[in-house]
Amino acid sequence: MRAEIVGVGTELLLGQIANTNARWISERLAEIGVDVLFHDVVGDNRGRIVEVLRLAAARSDVVVVTGGLGPTQDDITREAIAEVAAAPLERRADIEEWLRDRFERMGREMPASNLRQADVPRGADVIENERGSAPGLIVHAGDATIFAVPGVPAEMRQMVRSTVLPRVAAVAGPAGIASRQIRCVGMAESRIAEVLDDLFHGSTNPTVAYLAGGGEVRVRLTAKAGSLREADRLIGPLAEEVQRRLGDVVYSIGDEELEQVVARRLEAAGKTVACAESLTGGGVAKRLSSAPGASSYFHGSAVVYTPAAKHAVLGVSEDTMERDGIVSEATAREMAAGARRVFDVDLAIALTGSAGPEPHDGAPPGTVWIALEGYDVAHARELRAPGDRDTVIRWSEQAALDLLRRHLAGLPLPTGASLV
Amino acid sequence: MRAEIVGVGTELLLGQIANTNARWISERLAEIGVDVLFHDVVGDNRGRIVEVLRLAAARSDVVVVTGGLGPTQDDITREAIAEVAAAPLERRADIEEWLRDRFERMGREMPASNLRQADVPRGADVIENERGSAPGLIVHAGDATIFAVPGVPAEMRQMVRSTVLPRVAAVAGPAGIASRQIRCVGMAESRIAEVLDDLFHGSTNPTVAYLAGGGEVRVRLTAKAGSLREADRLIGPLAEEVQRRLGDVVYSIGDEELEQVVARRLEAAGKTVACAESLTGGGVAKRLSSAPGASSYFHGSAVVYTPAAKHAVLGVSEDTMERDGIVSEATAREMAAGARRVFDVDLAIALTGSAGPEPHDGAPPGTVWIALEGYDVAHARELRAPGDRDTVIRWSEQAALDLLRRHLAGLPLPTGASLV
Repeated sequence: MRAEIVGVGTELLLGQIANTNARWISERLAEIGVDVLFHDVVGDNRGRIVEVLRLAAARSDVVVVTGGLGPTQDDITREAIAEVAAAPLERRADIEEWLRDRFERMGREMPASNLRQADVPRGADVIENERGSAPGLIVHAGDATIFAVPGVPAEMRQMVRSTVLPRVAAVAGPAGIASRQIRCVGMAESRIAEVLDDLFHGSTNPTVAYLAGGGEVRVRLTAKAGSLREADRLIGPLAEEVQRRLGDVVYSIGDEELEQVVARRLEAAGKTVACAESLTGGGVAKRLSSAPGASSYFHGSAVVYTPAAKHAVLGVSEDTMERDGIVSEATAREMAAGARRVFDVDLAIALTGSAGPEPHDGAPPGTVWIALEGYDVAHARELRAPGDRDTVIRWSEQAALDLLRRHLAGLPLPTGASLV
Repeated sequence: MRAEIVGVGTELLLGQIANTNARWISERLAEIGVDVLFHDVVGDNRGRIVEVLRLAAARSDVVVVTGGLGPTQDDITREAIAEVAAAPLERRADIEEWLRDRFERMGREMPASNLRQADVPRGADVIENERGSAPGLIVHAGDATIFAVPGVPAEMRQMVRSTVLPRVAAVAGPAGIASRQIRCVGMAESRIAEVLDDLFHGSTNPTVAYLAGGGEVRVRLTAKAGSLREADRLIGPLAEEVQRRLGDVVYSIGDEELEQVVARRLEAAGKTVACAESLTGGGVAKRLSSAPGASSYFHGSAVVYTPAAKHAVLGVSEDTMERDGIVSEATAREMAAGARRVFDVDLAIALTGSAGPEPHDGAPPGTVWIALEGYDVAHARELRAPGDRDTVIRWSEQAALDLLRRHLAGLPLPTGASLV
């Protein structure tokens, strides 16, 4: 099976945005063993969209088109597909009703222009949009199947996951590229590569790639075989050896994020958590509250950006801040104790530090103190994070979440100042 | 002049990297007024590279090819270009010498495979590589000029700047493309398009594009003229008319984010702010604290995810939550009052709502109450946000920040339940 991805949008040709949709869809198609042979990008010009789609439908079995499904006059992907498939646009009453309902639920009148989104090439299937107003389309043109999805990444991803991938996989049949991602926090990329080097030396299947960023390293193993199961079997023993060598810095195999691991462990242990945050500005709370049902384990966070707020909300003593500094072990510990008391939780995690670019209360950028407090734990560590403001903040979040993970998993708690 | 950008590399088709080279080159070509009409991506397959280059050379005046110029067996752009231009590869002694010198300077022996980089289609010009070993190529194929540059971004950029842009500009003549972005919150994309429709109906210069996402809409105007200054002059009056018509939903012209606008206005007014957050879980705080020096206006946020936390940290009355509900105007107002008192700030913004997917205390997903309180303001509004959990949270953040923006700018505060 040959697939092709067509991006529609003048903003891509002007270089205002990169075609990250094509990258994401390609990655998903590779996972199910489908070869993508071409990407194309074309502007909001009907003649040229038709030209590109005709060529794509002639040389590929599956064409995924992103963009141009919105309600405005520059959204002309519907018209172009109708022309290529020789299937005139027809207004679908069910979509019209769905659109009206959607606007009604939002308490708004629907602009007339949105009605264009109810126009569908005759005989086309529709892909439901769970996040926006533009329905997706499935249209047959010659021997090819064209899937049209919105250019808004969240809407595109939902439709590709819900409909495009299952349909393509059903036709593509068994063949698979398996990929496993081993996520680590607390060890540097170069050290990880050193530890694993001999396992992959000269290997072309499976292959290994190291991706560092966001205060963690992802080790990605990829194998190709006649079926996903076979490809998985190629990866399995290697992945186990990788895990064995890396040990407890591995926090997840797959897509689970660090905060999701912490949330799962909190739920399993029946424990509750709260935060006291300074430099992270609510970032740890946002991550701990990201999952549905988070309120069963997450009670809240005191984002205390000023010394006065640390004192007023968490009862951090002014003497402590004066004597030891705002960025200090003592302040972090008092913040954690305060959060545990105020939010009435089993575990509290606190951060105080200097995100930069200027020093904070004498502490150079990247200096952070993190404290964890519970009925069976009272731990504090310093962190020295590298990089700019955003990097320091991200590393601080990672270090705080990893402290929770390690405590909940009964692992030794780090005392050194380096995250990796 | 019509330009086209061809990316060569299987890693692009596997989705391992995004085609950021095409984005960057497109932006540079737009700045000198050259229209890019297509991007293509093709893998390391000679037949398909030839197919793509033939089509590109037939429909475009300038073709910029990135990637496939390295020393390894999968680098076959040179061979493909030679085939398309019907100009056999010839080994150039001067390049061979340059390569040998280069390796000698680095104190390394040159691998034999690097000699391939001295092979050039007959009659081609060479672009010097100041950062790597792969020379670039300039080859004529029919009426088109093909520029081949490496895929390594730094090498590509150097060659595009040193040679491709000056050569293309010399042929294209003096021209420039200007672009302006008008960012709006509080009006739907379709409504914005309706309001502006007649300004751009049938206009090909300037053009307009609408980009919706993240709880806002960006209106992008683009114009082309004999110079960048002239293009700017074409956009100027239109941009002003767009702003006039859209009025106070426009929060920024350019790249400034909504939280940056709020931060700037807080600083200018010498006012301080704090938040009381429930469903946004610290997201508003994270955005308000993102800029260096945020502590001069941002004091903190009480992320109160449970009724007990709302009561303990902010003093929200248990009776109020019992009687009116956790997601209610009264609860939001008490949260705001509590945050203002606890953090001792001029302005407090509070949010309570149901992010979904399950209802929260009887409130269906997407129902949110937002309250703003200060010595000269006490306002509350309901918001009905569409979409999934992440979308509801993002829209809630936008609505809260926009309420602050409007208050600080002396604009009327919204009372309706719809963000747009």
